[in-house]
Amino acid sequence: MQSGATPASFPHRHLLGIEGLTRPVIVTLLDMAEEAIEVSRRVDKKRSSLRGRTQINLFYESSTRTQASFEIAGKRLGADVMNMSVARSSESKGETLIDTAVTLNAMRPDIIVVRHAHAGAAHLLARKVDCSVVNAGDGAHEHPTQALLDALTIRRNKGRIEGLTIAICGDILHSRVARSNILLLGALGARVRVVGPSTLAPDSLSRLGVEVFHDMRRGLEGADIVMMLRLQRERMAGVLTPSAREYFHFFGLDEEKLAYAAPDALVMHPGPMNRGVEIDTAVADSARSLIREQVEMGVAVRMAVLEALAQHLPNV
Amino acid sequence: MQSGATPASFPHRHLLGIEGLTRPVIVTLLDMAEEAIEVSRRVDKKRSSLRGRTQINLFYESSTRTQASFEIAGKRLGADVMNMSVARSSESKGETLIDTAVTLNAMRPDIIVVRHAHAGAAHLLARKVDCSVVNAGDGAHEHPTQALLDALTIRRNKGRIEGLTIAICGDILHSRVARSNILLLGALGARVRVVGPSTLAPDSLSRLGVEVFHDMRRGLEGADIVMMLRLQRERMAGVLTPSAREYFHFFGLDEEKLAYAAPDALVMHPGPMNRGVEIDTAVADSARSLIREQVEMGVAVRMAVLEALAQHLPNV
Amino acid sequence: MQSGATPASFPHRHLLGIEGLTRPVIVTLLDMAEEAIEVSRRVDKKRSSLRGRTQINLFYESSTRTQASFEIAGKRLGADVMNMSVARSSESKGETLIDTAVTLNAMRPDIIVVRHAHAGAAHLLARKVDCSVVNAGDGAHEHPTQALLDALTIRRNKGRIEGLTIAICGDILHSRVARSNILLLGALGARVRVVGPSTLAPDSLSRLGVEVFHDMRRGLEGADIVMMLRLQRERMAGVLTPSAREYFHFFGLDEEKLAYAAPDALVMHPGPMNRGVEIDTAVADSARSLIREQVEMGVAVRMAVLEALAQHLPNV
Repeated sequence: MQSGATPASFPHRHLLGIEGLTRPVIVTLLDMAEEAIEVSRRVDKKRSSLRGRTQINLFYESSTRTQASFEIAGKRLGADVMNMSVARSSESKGETLIDTAVTLNAMRPDIIVVRHAHAGAAHLLARKVDCSVVNAGDGAHEHPTQALLDALTIRRNKGRIEGLTIAICGDILHSRVARSNILLLGALGARVRVVGPSTLAPDSLSRLGVEVFHDMRRGLEGADIVMMLRLQRERMAGVLTPSAREYFHFFGLDEEKLAYAAPDALVMHPGPMNRGVEIDTAVADSARSLIREQVEMGVAVRMAVLEALAQHLPNV
Repeated sequence: MQSGATPASFPHRHLLGIEGLTRPVIVTLLDMAEEAIEVSRRVDKKRSSLRGRTQINLFYESSTRTQASFEIAGKRLGADVMNMSVARSSESKGETLIDTAVTLNAMRPDIIVVRHAHAGAAHLLARKVDCSVVNAGDGAHEHPTQALLDALTIRRNKGRIEGLTIAICGDILHSRVARSNILLLGALGARVRVVGPSTLAPDSLSRLGVEVFHDMRRGLEGADIVMMLRLQRERMAGVLTPSAREYFHFFGLDEEKLAYAAPDALVMHPGPMNRGVEIDTAVADSARSLIREQVEMGVAVRMAVLEALAQHLPNV
Repeated sequence: MQSGATPASFPHRHLLGIEGLTRPVIVTLLDMAEEAIEVSRRVDKKRSSLRGRTQINLFYESSTRTQASFEIAGKRLGADVMNMSVARSSESKGETLIDTAVTLNAMRPDIIVVRHAHAGAAHLLARKVDCSVVNAGDGAHEHPTQALLDALTIRRNKGRIEGLTIAICGDILHSRVARSNILLLGALGARVRVVGPSTLAPDSLSRLGVEVFHDMRRGLEGADIVMMLRLQRERMAGVLTPSAREYFHFFGLDEEKLAYAAPDALVMHPGPMNRGVEIDTAVADSARSLIREQVEMGVAVRMAVLEALAQHLPNV
């Protein structure tokens, strides 16, 4: 982690999205993450690269998994980590995201990790503070560390990303995970397909450079990676949603549909899963599932991102 | 803490219950805890025996006291401690205990401390993860660190446990504290009585090797230790519960009833107390009460357990 | 931080209020805080003066801002910090503040930072524990670290406090911030005015040695510092409260009213602000506003207080 020349080549102060990252920068982060994997597998997982730094996890949406991942990543690097879970009620008390940002900024943190229900919240925050900002998910916009951990998981299991056929399945329209993955996998040379009902995967998505499928079997045909998304009913206001059972029939991943993919196709899911809704339990727990490994890669990628950003703090 | 040969004799990867622990293993933990007491009484309470390790406190039931005790214990040993309080709503969102366990395990913690409303939850977790698991209370099953801290408190005040007469009073049937204490005190040679109404202390409990009393005064007669339990009304679904006032009349500990115990009898309670329900304020705050000391022993016992388990981590 | 003779001159074990602090003691704390400011502005913000110490933040009222400030302060000094947010429901479960205090005390913390809705709660706690207690706000009584950070902010911007005219505006009657500031600013030789409707700033407040104004423009006339308070409607039970719009008309700070103050008058607010209720957005964000700096001074003052108290721990 603390050696090598790669970190120096990370040119950004914030990580707000995959958009705007060049291929070499992405590869640098993935390479740094490879080193971080080893750190977490040791008995002594403590590094000192963020010692004396203050990291604030500012979560406006609850997310046990992502917040835990960032907290563990920061602590393993030696940072002082503070969690701030802002309930909706508290926000409605009259303090806006900007007031909160300005307040926190005055406490001189080095990094703020932010999750918010509104697209653009991380960018807004970044314009108001002196420290680095990491977007941990903003509305339906971006979730860059999820895309990085997905890419790392794919690269480790397939040896490459370029030239792979990757099918992202489910509610593409409302998914920041899908959006960040489309950008990142595209930048690294994968062929990306999106698969879902036309309400959740409209044909207009082809403007992002992906192929759109409304039939699951056709969409999976020959795919190297099948990436399922969580069906987030709370995000689908105004959309006629099918029942869970009907959804599973057409778009849930089971062994039968998976058989249409490449013989060595691997399965991914960002979690938490709705078993029996978007994915069958047998598939989720099979040897072809990378779901557990994705979680481990999540900590590694976040360690890499935190270390990379730590080089761009104002006082350094 | 970091010296001596005793730790090496702790042969388990998990602490799921008192059941299955031999007398020498229990004594080893109590001896390690004696050393930990001194650490917490210093100005510099920081040890390095868990430095670089990750401890997750996974609490499905809220417990300010027990969670705080484990958090302080872990931090004093140098661990990175992460608290995860899982509300019922979040669990019903579709992620099961097993999915959560598998997810957390992938983040490479060294120790998970778990509290759950269902008996057997800690065992289930232990089968799914690579790290050590400490049971911080699972339903009406076990709460081993509570029994260990109670034993430590008794040993320090009476000089021994063997041969003492110890009366556990209250809702025995639904109490994991009672169950773990019966196992541990029995293993160390105490004579254990349980005292309560037949609905909460049925005669069938005698199969555990204890004497059962339904009359408080007879149950306390000659007892060296009177251990009161918290009346947990939320656990007594379907049981005809007496009113608090009536309960106190028959089974609440006051000076009058305590007079039936040995002249030097001491009083214990795992907390938090319902003053005026199962215990009178005068008794709870008297010189014969060990209640405060139990809390201090709690931190010491948890430090001992965490240190003992740290020797059995997969990578060591 | 760890040098100089000043810390030794801090003679108290607790910080329960400004009442009882002498002018030299206050000045010592402000001087120590000046040094702490520099620590937080470094890349490596980590000090070791509280290494091995345990700090508990015991908050019975939620306060994102104050709790965060104490947490960051403690962590930067190297303490193990544990947050305990006690919801009202939990307190009603039967454990009183005193039982909680006695329990926590048995875990051997070095410092308890407490916020509670009842005036006197911090004093009560201090009588029951062996460690140091910091009052982080108790009902309408005191909030000493807020007054200290306000004084530090003023001293840095005006070069002095003695002889300044300071107008505190809003709900004086229910404000612990106002009360602590009146005591502190008076002790340092400022001339303090309070400004508000007679329901919130009754004439009887003059017994505190302040001038009382019910007209905003007259109250601000020639003032060097205009300190606005948050309008806390939840504290005003039984008081006929004006609508927010009407309140702003008479007592909200805008450019027009501010023009009555001294030409170089500066504006303060303890936060969080109700923009458009007690303060106009243009004023809050103007170059004359010290609001952001107050937050930064908050961390510095809390670091100073924690360090000062750390010298009076029983075992030292």
